Amino acid sequence: MQDIKVGLIGFGTVGQGLAETLHSQENRLTKRTGMKIGIKTIADTRARALPAHLEHIHLTQDARDILADPEIDIVVELIGGMEPAKTFLLEAIAAGKHVVTANKALLAQTGSEIFRKAAEKGVAVGFEASVGGGIPVIKALREGLVANRILAISGIMNGTANYILSRMTDEGIPFAEVLAEAQKLGFAEADPSYDVDGIDTAHKLAILMSMAYGIHITNREISTEGIRNIEPVDIEMAREFGFRIKLLAISRNHGEHVEARVHPTMVPGDKLLASINGAYNAIQFKGDCVGDILLCGLGAGKMPTGSAVAADVVDIARDIACNSVGRVPPLSYQLSQFAPRRITGMDELFGPYYFRFTVKDEPGVLASIAGVLSAQGISIASVIQKGRRGQEAAVPLVILTHAARESDVEQALTRIGKLDAVLAPVVKIRILEQEQ
Amino acid sequence: MQDIKVGLIGFGTVGQGLAETLHSQENRLTKRTGMKIGIKTIADTRARALPAHLEHIHLTQDARDILADPEIDIVVELIGGMEPAKTFLLEAIAAGKHVVTANKALLAQTGSEIFRKAAEKGVAVGFEASVGGGIPVIKALREGLVANRILAISGIMNGTANYILSRMTDEGIPFAEVLAEAQKLGFAEADPSYDVDGIDTAHKLAILMSMAYGIHITNREISTEGIRNIEPVDIEMAREFGFRIKLLAISRNHGEHVEARVHPTMVPGDKLLASINGAYNAIQFKGDCVGDILLCGLGAGKMPTGSAVAADVVDIARDIACNSVGRVPPLSYQLSQFAPRRITGMDELFGPYYFRFTVKDEPGVLASIAGVLSAQGISIASVIQKGRRGQEAAVPLVILTHAARESDVEQALTRIGKLDAVLAPVVKIRILEQEQ
Repeated sequence: MQDIKVGLIGFGTVGQGLAETLHSQENRLTKRTGMKIGIKTIADTRARALPAHLEHIHLTQDARDILADPEIDIVVELIGGMEPAKTFLLEAIAAGKHVVTANKALLAQTGSEIFRKAAEKGVAVGFEASVGGGIPVIKALREGLVANRILAISGIMNGTANYILSRMTDEGIPFAEVLAEAQKLGFAEADPSYDVDGIDTAHKLAILMSMAYGIHITNREISTEGIRNIEPVDIEMAREFGFRIKLLAISRNHGEHVEARVHPTMVPGDKLLASINGAYNAIQFKGDCVGDILLCGLGAGKMPTGSAVAADVVDIARDIACNSVGRVPPLSYQLSQFAPRRITGMDELFGPYYFRFTVKDEPGVLASIAGVLSAQGISIASVIQKGRRGQEAAVPLVILTHAARESDVEQALTRIGKLDAVLAPVVKIRILEQEQ
Repeated sequence: MQDIKVGLIGFGTVGQGLAETLHSQENRLTKRTGMKIGIKTIADTRARALPAHLEHIHLTQDARDILADPEIDIVVELIGGMEPAKTFLLEAIAAGKHVVTANKALLAQTGSEIFRKAAEKGVAVGFEASVGGGIPVIKALREGLVANRILAISGIMNGTANYILSRMTDEGIPFAEVLAEAQKLGFAEADPSYDVDGIDTAHKLAILMSMAYGIHITNREISTEGIRNIEPVDIEMAREFGFRIKLLAISRNHGEHVEARVHPTMVPGDKLLASINGAYNAIQFKGDCVGDILLCGLGAGKMPTGSAVAADVVDIARDIACNSVGRVPPLSYQLSQFAPRRITGMDELFGPYYFRFTVKDEPGVLASIAGVLSAQGISIASVIQKGRRGQEAAVPLVILTHAARESDVEQALTRIGKLDAVLAPVVKIRILEQEQ
C-alpha cells in the first residue's frame, strides 16, 4: 500500500486541526484512497510536546528537518504571514516537494512567484483552505465550474467581520462594543484590521479572481473598505428598506476589464447572502452556463479548515500515486495562458447607493441636497428623514438612489459636503445590484 | 495537443446543453486543460439535423455508430430512463470507453452493476449531473469532503416540486392549479409523478448515500412521500409557526444504521433551506470535521446540467491524458470497501411533528385528541384551532408536538382517526429537527 508522508510546519489552530483530521479519518481515507496518508514530522518553534494520540509523530523545532527529509512527500505550511512562511514554501518546492498552504496573505501578495516556481519544479500547490475555510470553493471553481466563463464573484469571505455585523444587526450594539467582546471571546484578533478593514477578504478575492479569469492580481489592486464606519443607525435604516449590511467581496467580469472591490454592501433581504449570519461564509459564482452557484459553510476554525487542508493532501497523494501531478493547473488556467486584464476603476462603477447625511434640522435642506444630486444626474429612489428634535439638532437624512455612476456620486457628495446644513461626512454604502 | 473525442447519445434538452457548452467553452477548455475536447458524433433516433454551428459534428440515428467507433474516448448517455440507456452504457463500458451519464433513475436502481463493470474494465463513470443539476455536489462530497465522516445529508433536490411548493406558499394557490400551470409552461412533465411524488428526489438521495457511507442502496429502500396532499391550509399554518414546507431528502448517519427518507418537511424559517425557492436546489452535508456545508444552484435546465456533464467530460479527459483513470473512485469509497448498513425503520424516527386534524366543531374534541397523544407519551408544543362556523362544520385543528417516536405517533393517530369527532384522515408532516 502506498504510504504518503506529510511534513507539517506550524502547529497552531489549523495545524492541530489538520493533525486531528488526518488522525481521526485515517481508516476512512485508506478505504477511500487505498493509501496510507499520515503526518511524519511536525515543526513548530514553540511546541514542546504532542498530545498522546499523536505521539507517533516526530516533533521538531526546526522546519529544515522536514525540508531536508527525503521521505516526506508533501509539506504543509500553516504558519501564516509572509516570513518565514514564504521561504519555507519556496525551499520545499526547490527540494521537489509538493506543498499545501492556507496562507491567503502570502498567495495574494506573491502567489504568482510561488505558482511559477512550483510549475517549473513540477510539484503541486494546494490552497483549498485559503478561501472559505472548510468550504470546497477552490475545487468547485477550478473543476466543478471548469466549463463556464465566470461572469461574477460575490461573497462573504471573512467570518469575524460577518459575526460582528450579524450581532450589530440582531442586537443593535455598536461596532466597537461587539469587536471588544469578540476579542475577549477569541473570535477576533488583538489587531483586528485584517478582518474588519477588509484586507483578509481582499486576499481571498484576489485568489478567486486569479482562477476565475486567468489573471495575476494582488490584493493591492482591489479597492478595499472595511466596516469600522458602519453605525447602528445605518443597520436600522437598512432594515427599514429591506436590506442587511454585509462585508462583500465583489468582482464582475466586463470582458476587457474586471471589477475588484471589497466594501460594506446593502444586500436585499431576499438574497441568500443576506441570510448568511455569524461566522458563516458564503461564496457565489455566476457562470455563463451554470447560472448562480452558492457555497456556504464555516469560513474558519480548527476542524473545518483542517478538513480543507486534508482534502488538498489527499488530492496530491492521489496524483503522487497515479504519477499525475499537474493533472489540473492549480490556478485553473495553465500559467502560460495567463493574460493581463484591466481592473475597473471605482469611478466607473454603476449601481444604486445608500447615503446618510447628518444635517441641520431646518427647512430647505432636502431641497438643496436633492438639487445637487439631480444636477449630477443621480435619481433618488427613496428618502427617510427622522428624529426632528429642534432647530439646531443634527438629524440623519437617508437617501437611496437608482443606479448611478460612481464618479457622478463622488462629485455630488463633494458638493453636498460643502453645504452649510451638512454637519458631518456623508456615509455612502453601495447597494448590491439585483442582477447579482 | 491531446484530442479527446466524445460521443453523445441523446440530443434532448441536456444533450443540447452539453453540445452548446463544449462548443462555447472550446477555447477556454483548451486554455485550462491544454487539450482539445469536442463531440465527434451525436446519436439520436429523432434528430434529423444539427444547428449550423454544430455542423462539424457527425449525426447518426444509431448509437452503435458511437459504441463501435475506436476513435471515441468518452460516451455520454443523456437519453434517460432504463432502456436502452442501460444497454448502451454497459456496451460502452464493455468496449473500454469511459462513460458519463446524468441518469439518476438508472444509477439509483442498477448503479452497483454499472460501477462494478466499469471498475472491472478500468474505465471511468462520471455522474455529476445526476444530482443537483449544475451544482458540483458529487465532486464536493467525493473530494472536497473526503476527510469527513458524513453525519447527515439534507436537501431540496427536485426543482419542479420546489417550484410548486414555492408558488403555493407565495400565492396561496392549491397544488393542482400550480401543477397544471407548471405543466403548461413546460416546468413539469405530463406525468409529474417522479417530481411531485418524491421518486426523483429518492433517486438522488440513493446516489449521495452510496457515496457518503460506502453502501449499496437503491431508491426502493428509501421511504418516499410526495407533496400531493399538501393543502394551502398547511402552508398557511406553517407560516404562522415560522416554518416553510419543503420536499426534503434526509439521511442521518447513526453508525449501525442510516436514515433514508424523502417527505414534505416543516423547515424553520431561519434555516437556509427554508429560503431556497423556485427551481433552485440546495444540498447540505454535515461532516464531523467540516460542520455544515450547503451548496445551492439551479437543479435542472439545459445549460446548468450541460455544464455539469461537461465538467465530468473534462475530468475524465484529464485522467486520459495523465493515464490516471481510477485516481478517484467514482463512489468515493473503493468498491471493495463497500459494506451493508441497515436502513433505519421509519417507526424508529424521533422528532417533532405537525398534525392537522379535520374535526367536528364541538366541545371536548381537543381534550380527547390531547388525551390520546398524552397516553402515547407524545407531548404537545402548540395548538391552533380556527374558523368556528357552527356545530356541524368541519374545522381544522393543528397540533405541533415536541420530539416523539414515530411508532408512538402512528399508534396515536390510528386511535385518533377512530374518534367520532374526527372527520377526515389526519395530515402528518415531520418538522426538521433543529440540530440539522
